[in-house]
Amino acid sequence: MKSHILLIETKNTKNLAHHISEIFFKHDLSLISNEDFITYEDNKYFKRTEFYGLIDDDHYVQFLCDLYPVLHEKAKVRLIEKEKKRVVVLCTKEHHCIGDILIRNKYGDFNAEVLGVISNYDKLGDLVESFNIPYHFISHKDKTREEHESEILDVIYSYNPEYIVLAKYMRILTNNFVSKYPQRIINIHHSFLPAFVGANPYKQAYDRGVKIIGATAHLVTADLDEGPIIVQDVINVDHTKTPKELSHEGKELERVLLAKALELAFEDRIFVTGNKTIIFD
Amino acid sequence: MKSHILLIETKNTKNLAHHISEIFFKHDLSLISNEDFITYEDNKYFKRTEFYGLIDDDHYVQFLCDLYPVLHEKAKVRLIEKEKKRVVVLCTKEHHCIGDILIRNKYGDFNAEVLGVISNYDKLGDLVESFNIPYHFISHKDKTREEHESEILDVIYSYNPEYIVLAKYMRILTNNFVSKYPQRIINIHHSFLPAFVGANPYKQAYDRGVKIIGATAHLVTADLDEGPIIVQDVINVDHTKTPKELSHEGKELERVLLAKALELAFEDRIFVTGNKTIIFD
Amino acid sequence: MKSHILLIETKNTKNLAHHISEIFFKHDLSLISNEDFITYEDNKYFKRTEFYGLIDDDHYVQFLCDLYPVLHEKAKVRLIEKEKKRVVVLCTKEHHCIGDILIRNKYGDFNAEVLGVISNYDKLGDLVESFNIPYHFISHKDKTREEHESEILDVIYSYNPEYIVLAKYMRILTNNFVSKYPQRIINIHHSFLPAFVGANPYKQAYDRGVKIIGATAHLVTADLDEGPIIVQDVINVDHTKTPKELSHEGKELERVLLAKALELAFEDRIFVTGNKTIIFD
Amino acid sequence: MKSHILLIETKNTKNLAHHISEIFFKHDLSLISNEDFITYEDNKYFKRTEFYGLIDDDHYVQFLCDLYPVLHEKAKVRLIEKEKKRVVVLCTKEHHCIGDILIRNKYGDFNAEVLGVISNYDKLGDLVESFNIPYHFISHKDKTREEHESEILDVIYSYNPEYIVLAKYMRILTNNFVSKYPQRIINIHHSFLPAFVGANPYKQAYDRGVKIIGATAHLVTADLDEGPIIVQDVINVDHTKTPKELSHEGKELERVLLAKALELAFEDRIFVTGNKTIIFD
Repeated sequence: MKSHILLIETKNTKNLAHHISEIFFKHDLSLISNEDFITYEDNKYFKRTEFYGLIDDDHYVQFLCDLYPVLHEKAKVRLIEKEKKRVVVLCTKEHHCIGDILIRNKYGDFNAEVLGVISNYDKLGDLVESFNIPYHFISHKDKTREEHESEILDVIYSYNPEYIVLAKYMRILTNNFVSKYPQRIINIHHSFLPAFVGANPYKQAYDRGVKIIGATAHLVTADLDEGPIIVQDVINVDHTKTPKELSHEGKELERVLLAKALELAFEDRIFVTGNKTIIFD
Repeated sequence: MKSHILLIETKNTKNLAHHISEIFFKHDLSLISNEDFITYEDNKYFKRTEFYGLIDDDHYVQFLCDLYPVLHEKAKVRLIEKEKKRVVVLCTKEHHCIGDILIRNKYGDFNAEVLGVISNYDKLGDLVESFNIPYHFISHKDKTREEHESEILDVIYSYNPEYIVLAKYMRILTNNFVSKYPQRIINIHHSFLPAFVGANPYKQAYDRGVKIIGATAHLVTADLDEGPIIVQDVINVDHTKTPKELSHEGKELERVLLAKALELAFEDRIFVTGNKTIIFD
Repeated sequence: MKSHILLIETKNTKNLAHHISEIFFKHDLSLISNEDFITYEDNKYFKRTEFYGLIDDDHYVQFLCDLYPVLHEKAKVRLIEKEKKRVVVLCTKEHHCIGDILIRNKYGDFNAEVLGVISNYDKLGDLVESFNIPYHFISHKDKTREEHESEILDVIYSYNPEYIVLAKYMRILTNNFVSKYPQRIINIHHSFLPAFVGANPYKQAYDRGVKIIGATAHLVTADLDEGPIIVQDVINVDHTKTPKELSHEGKELERVLLAKALELAFEDRIFVTGNKTIIFD
Repeated sequence: MKSHILLIETKNTKNLAHHISEIFFKHDLSLISNEDFITYEDNKYFKRTEFYGLIDDDHYVQFLCDLYPVLHEKAKVRLIEKEKKRVVVLCTKEHHCIGDILIRNKYGDFNAEVLGVISNYDKLGDLVESFNIPYHFISHKDKTREEHESEILDVIYSYNPEYIVLAKYMRILTNNFVSKYPQRIINIHHSFLPAFVGANPYKQAYDRGVKIIGATAHLVTADLDEGPIIVQDVINVDHTKTPKELSHEGKELERVLLAKALELAFEDRIFVTGNKTIIFD
């Protein structure tokens, strides 16, 4: 029997968790995993449940019909079967993140399928194509930002993806671009945000003389480097490290953290509340 | 025989390390440990050497007479015997850092002696005095910042300390105060700087939704939270943590990092270059 | 209104979580926090719930009367009010863990009260007594292990404690001793268990040339260093560290991890299943 | 001008570092980096120096002629130009480490060239060959260990490699095999050694209920899992993780640590003393 994932985001109300529990009980469903969380500052309720037992489409509808009345009228509910997410990756010239994603994609490590890769340089084509994935080289030269993005969006639309991954895509996206895929664009930033926003964070880190450097995978919003944070990690460094060495060591974090963020996103484990994430892992 | 510590900070010149090595060889000195570092951006040379073999005051002078000619005329040199540093601690109301320092001080874990503790509240007197250390309660109420600092400085002067430790002293120091003890005031800040400067960093961290929180021990300069960083560390957190819980967990970092920074400072292991530290540990 | 903590350990059965939820609903109780876990290998159910709403002793009894029928007959249930745990600490000669515990105890950082400290050396008496806590020096010299433990147990019994903390108590306890306080004796071991059981773990770590050292807080069982692990952590080291330096750096871990384990224990957040812990934190 | 690397391993003698410094001075060589270390327990001296200034073969010989007399007669000295190491990789069925190595190799991230890959399964051939690297499938079925290794060694010999990398090669090597490449075989073990030697370390870790899991890259010796440790790291886990999840999370460590160890090895930064490593990084 197939499993389903129920995702709920709603205003919390008295005994809400219990009332939802009653519906699972009534429909004789078997929980595989369940996580819920109520926000501290505004009493919002988030729930992710994996379960077995919906036997057919009728059952699916009846379950939802029972569920909706116990939720607030503005509740967001998704009831889905676990299927591979459709993904397009954008990159520039660096190979470490895209290389890692291609290996994981080839062996099904992610709950996703990479449909195509787009870059504003032609440097990574042989790597991508050796994995039998289309590589679209769309140079930004002699184009306005809008023209360039328009060409990119045309390719993206052709794949109808659920997620856009920025695997070291080193250009700033316009609000227009970002608004097409709200909470669906994932970026890896090479600092422990909110420290060192903007360009050249490793140089900034060197200049400040920090003893830790980090990286941050986050959802992209209209505000550069200000989107909801998914995962972060750091490594210890000392005064002997040059900016180049910091960058070299930071790449290891970038690779691992982007992969971790994608794993969470592709399994529908990320909720957004305000400008923060709730991660059910 | 007593050991000495040689501390050098100078413009680097060709074969400098070798020329210093020749002087150690000529004087038949035995190295216990040696560390040196040349800065990447401005070719400055820093050296810390512990060694045996200076037999008397004449020998001490002869060694320096041989050393100076091989160094740049503006070189800073210190040749010291290892002695406990004289220390005054400032705190406010929180007990975790001062408590830890008092325990370590009692058992000689630090190469230092805490001479007195000053606070703008009367909350920690029984703790401090139970360790037989004078506690000076100097309220800031109904005083200008300058008046308050003047009273504090009078007490500090009476101890003639080498280091001032801010063990969660929650008031901003004036430039005048800071200028009295350049590179001699050590603070613990409750964030991974440069993220979350200023007040209430745990609340700021909560609002930003970071997945790591941290703390930073640093030397105090006229620019608040901008002084040279000595040590930093972080812990992982998630969306379930309230600001209060972040603060609770962060205190563990604060306690450990301040102690680590003090250990380094009291053993003369910290050099400052520009706004950064070089740590020989 | 007072809060209560419900602790359940039982065989898992179909819809058990829902049936317990129904009882909370029926009695109109308000959850502060709730965690449950079902073991992977033997389908045991563990639950820790903090809640408001039991208005008097009758209500307390009625709640339990409703609860018991939905649980397996061998279920272990505790329904308690949050009260400070009664604690006795054993130590030997090292001051770092006991010093930290005394500071935390003085300021109520723990949900516990340290009633007395026992040591087989007379070295730490002035520290303990400066916190107005009785210090019992019970030398092991010229006594059999049984004689020595008998004297210690007499003192412990006089305090009727719920937890015994081994704060670097460097002697092995007999099975007889351990059996008096099952799952109630907490030890800090200075390695990342199961590596380096037994004596001198830092020397063992040095000899093996490990690049990380660690510490482990665990519940004490009859098998030395084999009890259920509560918390562990590590730090990076390199080839330059002597055994003495490893020990020095390891003490920082020991202090922090023992405190963390005690915090968890004193808030009833530790369950034991087989030889493992379940931590609801 | 080309740079050279000098590697020395010798009995320490009085003023040895100074005497070597004199030779660098005499030959007017410019240091790029220099590290040395004297062992604590047996007074052995290790040195790695990168430098410029050897102008031709005659100069190379003269430098060594000056150097040898200041060293102990049994000193091991290597004076090399920085060249890519020749490498053969062995794997079994898992793709995460070999995939990562192939990406790094393609872009020259390592100071090495992967000449060929050997596996006892035919599962990874299309991946390896998509990088234009020969894949040798040598099944162990129906062969003695000696027969199997003999076939593998024939392939290895054909490449004349300097290093053998075990990228999750899940078979035990005989002493005969190991003795062919002393200190030249690098393995990744999926636990923080010395905890959990042998088979199924993640299952062992689960059964013991540890709160950290780790991985260890080490040099292979005749004693399984007992060779000198190069790098180690850990991640925090809790009671909710199944053995399968521990294995999944551990793979991230394995990938990163093997890559780190290879980077160190291929730049001649690893010395071995007894059963321990000295890492100059």
